[in-house]
Amino acid sequence: MIPGTEIKDRIRKIRDLMGVDVMIISKPKNLMYISGITSGHSLLTQDSCTVWTNEIEYETIKYPGIIDAELYKKNAMKDCLDKLKPGKIGIENVEINYYNKIKKEIDCEITVSDAVERARMVKSDYEIALVKKSAGIARKGMEKAYEVVSPGTSELKAAAEIEYEIRKNQSETTPFEHGMLLSSGKNSADIHGFPTKKKIKSGELVVVDLGARYGQYYSDMTRTIPAGKLKLNSKEAMAYEFIKNLELETIDIIKVGMKASDVHKFADDKIKEFKYKFHHSIGHGVGLAVQEMPHLNGISETVLCENMVFTIEPGIYVPGKFGVRFEDMVLLSKKRCIILTA
Amino acid sequence: MIPGTEIKDRIRKIRDLMGVDVMIISKPKNLMYISGITSGHSLLTQDSCTVWTNEIEYETIKYPGIIDAELYKKNAMKDCLDKLKPGKIGIENVEINYYNKIKKEIDCEITVSDAVERARMVKSDYEIALVKKSAGIARKGMEKAYEVVSPGTSELKAAAEIEYEIRKNQSETTPFEHGMLLSSGKNSADIHGFPTKKKIKSGELVVVDLGARYGQYYSDMTRTIPAGKLKLNSKEAMAYEFIKNLELETIDIIKVGMKASDVHKFADDKIKEFKYKFHHSIGHGVGLAVQEMPHLNGISETVLCENMVFTIEPGIYVPGKFGVRFEDMVLLSKKRCIILTA
Repeated sequence: MIPGTEIKDRIRKIRDLMGVDVMIISKPKNLMYISGITSGHSLLTQDSCTVWTNEIEYETIKYPGIIDAELYKKNAMKDCLDKLKPGKIGIENVEINYYNKIKKEIDCEITVSDAVERARMVKSDYEIALVKKSAGIARKGMEKAYEVVSPGTSELKAAAEIEYEIRKNQSETTPFEHGMLLSSGKNSADIHGFPTKKKIKSGELVVVDLGARYGQYYSDMTRTIPAGKLKLNSKEAMAYEFIKNLELETIDIIKVGMKASDVHKFADDKIKEFKYKFHHSIGHGVGLAVQEMPHLNGISETVLCENMVFTIEPGIYVPGKFGVRFEDMVLLSKKRCIILTA
Repeated sequence: MIPGTEIKDRIRKIRDLMGVDVMIISKPKNLMYISGITSGHSLLTQDSCTVWTNEIEYETIKYPGIIDAELYKKNAMKDCLDKLKPGKIGIENVEINYYNKIKKEIDCEITVSDAVERARMVKSDYEIALVKKSAGIARKGMEKAYEVVSPGTSELKAAAEIEYEIRKNQSETTPFEHGMLLSSGKNSADIHGFPTKKKIKSGELVVVDLGARYGQYYSDMTRTIPAGKLKLNSKEAMAYEFIKNLELETIDIIKVGMKASDVHKFADDKIKEFKYKFHHSIGHGVGLAVQEMPHLNGISETVLCENMVFTIEPGIYVPGKFGVRFEDMVLLSKKRCIILTA
């Protein structure tokens, strides 16, 4: 269970960021962040935090004095808003049908707000401890990957062994939404290369992207493993060395106060100089979701702060030929990035 | 690769259902349904189907004469719409920020449409063959569950063994978004009970909910396994027998032409008569998503048709005590439901 002091701090952070009179929270990870449960919705004001949920989750909300837990009741949220008469309501980036339903019920200005996602960017000591444990399980999975990725094994067989190892180390989930990524040879040119029946051949690059979850906190890391020996001076071998170094070089330049987009641009420029195109962003936050804010892409205005946790993951992908990616999850400390997955 | 004739049929089905001049498709599963790829967006009219995507997925769209594949280009969709001058545009139930972005670019009536989801409800022979294979893998996983669920084992350890079996049988994913559900004793009162470190004890009910994916098609099934012997005439034992029978009884009453909500009401009434409350809906469609239309809940107006594939899954949950659920995935044939997961 999340400690009450932690819940209190999180709610305070959101109150500082929300800039509206009332914030409606219903996305599962956001609701989890403030209450520990995932189904229902919440109304947050500067003075109160009400959560409506079903009979089963209701039993698990144990934060008296911080959260008013209520059972679902028809029109409960509308009645509450009618009493509050807020000038400005914030809503998450929900689906249009849900937005229209709320809009019909409420007669005031509604703005889309990512206040909860922004609060989630900076991790508390409680969260950092969990993220570290999660990273430890991911590392165990990667050790297994180095054992089982070899010529003659199928991608699916290797993935089965690695996921089994991750689960045996008590990960609460399998890696990611559809299991881990593991792709060899030309399959690895697919950024989201899920394992297939294809057999791994000698001389191929194998991209292994995995993670774990512990205490609700995810981890995420990627290694590219050469199966057998790479052909000396081949394009694969050159790209492999280049990306392996670039990943660490990028981590080295990151400092508190840097703009997320500048981190992306650093890697993007280097890959361009190397005569390839960079097909995705250099990284993303990790926490209650495996991908969350900050987004380290070319357009992000986010300024990186102490205690943010994110990935750095440069890659090169040549359709029909090969792919290579290295990724670590880092914690930004006052002075530098600490790698959690190495 | 999805056969071209299949893609053609799917697009035709959507054209018949969409009721707008242009349908914009961007949700990954919907895009997958019409083109085989997952990143990008598509404009569908009665005469054309254009898909814009990145350089990596572009290579994989191979349907000349059916789909015009194009690389992402700034304003490409807007330019295309400017030429088409549609009166009415249909958009999926997308997030509000994306909706607002599109609305800003387009000067015509936009309606939210679930035409693609409705087209996906009725499965083709090609899809049914894949769903059956997927169900076969799920069954193998459940056989393993009956082997490993026993007093003394932890929920996580049992789940690790079962998921390993499912992967070894070549499932393309681990079960569901966060792995399978497996919960014992009072944990099983949680409808979404993920495995924990808790050890399974003798006399407890263990709810095992799992699935697989094959050729992109999911499967879904649940068994409640008593660990050791249940206490005779205990509430657990009575609920277990009741739900096990109710599941098959519900499957038996389903016929082509029945309203989805009537199926739900049948089970809901029976559970009420038995003096419990039914906390979720009786079932959901399965296909490219593990949960899709038709939704078999109390308010669905969907009429069940031949070749729909859905689950039937009654359950009873008593917070702090126990839970029980039985679920099978069925194919509705002309005459009756055929159970795919038994």
